Amino acid sequence: MTESSGPATAPVPFGVRLHRALEERGPLCVGIDPHPALLAEWGLNDDAGGLERFARTTVEALADRVAVLKPQAAFFERFGSRGVAVLERVTSEARAAGALVLMDAKRGDIGHTMEAYADTFLHPASSLFSDALTVSPYLGYGSLDPAVRRAREHGGGLFVLALTSNPEGREVQRARAAGGGDVASAVLDRLRAENAGEPPLGSFGAVVGATLGDLSEYDLAIGGPLLAPGIGAQGATPADLPGVFGAAARAVLPSVSRGVLRQGPEMSGLRDSAARLVESVRAAVN
Amino acid sequence: MTESSGPATAPVPFGVRLHRALEERGPLCVGIDPHPALLAEWGLNDDAGGLERFARTTVEALADRVAVLKPQAAFFERFGSRGVAVLERVTSEARAAGALVLMDAKRGDIGHTMEAYADTFLHPASSLFSDALTVSPYLGYGSLDPAVRRAREHGGGLFVLALTSNPEGREVQRARAAGGGDVASAVLDRLRAENAGEPPLGSFGAVVGATLGDLSEYDLAIGGPLLAPGIGAQGATPADLPGVFGAAARAVLPSVSRGVLRQGPEMSGLRDSAARLVESVRAAVN
Repeated sequence: MTESSGPATAPVPFGVRLHRALEERGPLCVGIDPHPALLAEWGLNDDAGGLERFARTTVEALADRVAVLKPQAAFFERFGSRGVAVLERVTSEARAAGALVLMDAKRGDIGHTMEAYADTFLHPASSLFSDALTVSPYLGYGSLDPAVRRAREHGGGLFVLALTSNPEGREVQRARAAGGGDVASAVLDRLRAENAGEPPLGSFGAVVGATLGDLSEYDLAIGGPLLAPGIGAQGATPADLPGVFGAAARAVLPSVSRGVLRQGPEMSGLRDSAARLVESVRAAVN
Repeated sequence: MTESSGPATAPVPFGVRLHRALEERGPLCVGIDPHPALLAEWGLNDDAGGLERFARTTVEALADRVAVLKPQAAFFERFGSRGVAVLERVTSEARAAGALVLMDAKRGDIGHTMEAYADTFLHPASSLFSDALTVSPYLGYGSLDPAVRRAREHGGGLFVLALTSNPEGREVQRARAAGGGDVASAVLDRLRAENAGEPPLGSFGAVVGATLGDLSEYDLAIGGPLLAPGIGAQGATPADLPGVFGAAARAVLPSVSRGVLRQGPEMSGLRDSAARLVESVRAAVN
């Protein structure tokens, strides 16, 4: 991969761009999760053609109005290189229409390999260049450094898995780390340090499930965004956000997938359900 | 993805196939890690063409003699769909030549998404169908269930990250889980249960770094293989294996990347270095 010559001015940090998008478009992230059952509901084949139709329809309906679109890499990778070609197209079309693209790929590795994942998703020369990437800290928060560096260089963002919405996550995320707190707290602390001095919103976020109930034992004020999956099909509602996130609720980026996608393939169904959700979230957290 | 009609007989489990390959070809896994510096050392461009030349040369040199080849997905994904097309070709050519392919992608997610990753790498209808996959348990061991199921259905294997070779890994992997042991022990216990009653070797392995020094506090006898990265460039040698793995050293699949790949692009350099390593490992663990 050759370095792009790029603009001489520093890129605008992801946190600044996200803050602006949330003000302008409202607090919502819509996941693009074309799983087989949804393709069937839309009357599409479970193949690369069906995938492309599904994903591009979603982009066409939402990329000019929703703050963040979040393609789930797994559902594209299922179709190998053909699926990844669709992911490339979806990513660039969504960005061109003004949405921020958060690639939900949950990558995590060390050294040169982590750097390669960062080059894949956070380097402007890549065909999969995205605004932000979800990453997994099982190999230690420090293993993510190459991605943090790339994000800083090119105005990208990261969302680090902290407290995921699934119950099995507890066994690792709430295990006691050497310092006495648990693994999730240690991740939140590192993100707080990463975002220090970057108001109004830093570029380094956490993934914190909206279905987890009271999280008051955690300091969720990390100075960056909190991606909150679990709204809709998984059982949480916008009205739950203040109870789960407390004072940090205004930094929450609620993420919904099936709740919106099931209203397709008609544009109006997708747009109306996204618009209703934005209003519900605004009403709940303001 | 449509179900392949497939053979009526049950597939041979990965553990059985791996055990046979290790007996016939010797205990070695060679990583295919085409990072930019290695492409340059081989005189290749840092583009999809260079990637293809590098990876297919490695397959041509080694797939008919080394037990396991381990492509590192990140170095292919760097080139987007074109890189993934190379990965498809490398995977199928390596399997056709008789090597087992362990896809090093460290995937980890929940529910339908984990199922989609399992369909990508462990379903025979996929263009990326591999013999085994590395997975990350940060979302809890139970989150990996869809991959465990797919592996059992189609004779595939998994290698779950337990104790990785990098020092930052400690903060998560050695955190204390609810039961009193640490996260890594809990992963090893779950794998032991998965492999119960599947001699000579189960299909569910762990990733345990060869650079970690004395691991006698862990019960590494999980009834499945232990993938041990860290041999060669990262500083461990075959002679270190008995000291690190104790009685479990005979279930170790040592993994080397740069140590072999640096001897290319000549076939003889790649083959001779792999053959020497097999002999060193045999001498050390028998």
